[in-house]
Amino acid sequence: MKLLEEKILSCGTVLPGNILKVDSFLNHQLDVTLLNELGKEFHRLFSSYNITKILTVEASGIAIACFAAQYFDVPVVFAKKGHHKNIGTDCYTAEVFSFTKGTSYTVAVSRKYLSSDDTILIIDDFLANGQAALGLKKIVEDAGASLAGVGIAIEKGFQDGGKKLRDAGVNVKSLAIVDSMTDDSISFREDG
Amino acid sequence: MKLLEEKILSCGTVLPGNILKVDSFLNHQLDVTLLNELGKEFHRLFSSYNITKILTVEASGIAIACFAAQYFDVPVVFAKKGHHKNIGTDCYTAEVFSFTKGTSYTVAVSRKYLSSDDTILIIDDFLANGQAALGLKKIVEDAGASLAGVGIAIEKGFQDGGKKLRDAGVNVKSLAIVDSMTDDSISFREDG
Repeated sequence: MKLLEEKILSCGTVLPGNILKVDSFLNHQLDVTLLNELGKEFHRLFSSYNITKILTVEASGIAIACFAAQYFDVPVVFAKKGHHKNIGTDCYTAEVFSFTKGTSYTVAVSRKYLSSDDTILIIDDFLANGQAALGLKKIVEDAGASLAGVGIAIEKGFQDGGKKLRDAGVNVKSLAIVDSMTDDSISFREDG
Repeated sequence: MKLLEEKILSCGTVLPGNILKVDSFLNHQLDVTLLNELGKEFHRLFSSYNITKILTVEASGIAIACFAAQYFDVPVVFAKKGHHKNIGTDCYTAEVFSFTKGTSYTVAVSRKYLSSDDTILIIDDFLANGQAALGLKKIVEDAGASLAGVGIAIEKGFQDGGKKLRDAGVNVKSLAIVDSMTDDSISFREDG
């Protein structure tokens, strides 16, 4: 998606450790006009599925998921990280290993908000090692729901999360796929 | 706001420990149609201020803040909880005590995204003891920005956060103020 690639080129910065810093518009400060366009694009890409719910994970997936949900006219469910006493114990859970932090955390969704009647679109801001998306996929499967696909804003194509998901038969659509990045250049995959 | 009060009455449940559980529409599953109406109402209430940014805190404030931001046509900035190495060290921070969890946590906003030119509207889903809102207020002040007000979806009127903020001269607008709640009834303040 040209609009997103141009925004990454103009506002993103590359930090040591393969970090692509896009916190001026995607995951700290939020450019809601851009995010609305991303939501619209996810709707275009997945409109042929009868999506009943959008699933994401707190915190930075929530905004994009909400804008997409407006076009699908369905609710968002966001998985919570760690243990939340307010969420109750009757949850679907998955362990997610964070390569950034070097530790695992639990993501949880109340059983009330996913069912075998649901067709789920997973949306998240980043796909790198794919651990979060794989955790959400497990939760969808545990609920007996159908997974229509995974919509990602920025995929790090040089990490293996996208391959893992696609090899598992998941329909992954990433609006921008970064194939390589250095201090002074970012290049995108053509079909991104 | 009648729409929100009716939703609370039809879908909210009261749990021991003064917990009002509204996770079917506000902070786990998200009713984006309703949240969009809340965003529109915040715009009506604060449209006379020249708001330049909406400030909230992850995670459950993000959705409402985004919908409101669409009407104001301004970015959202969400404060991050805990230590995030991606956010950098050049932050405005505040300590927030959580009565629910009995511990403190840090909220942080990168200095890049708040300035003395900004007029800020703080938005959050809940106001109870007011600790999160007071933390965000401190961050706004530390940045030298102007605080136009605080917009809250649900205020627990029987806890003292609203009083603390209003006594400090803050323009607080809550879309629903719960004056009392028991296992089988929830009553709202008339001017809520």
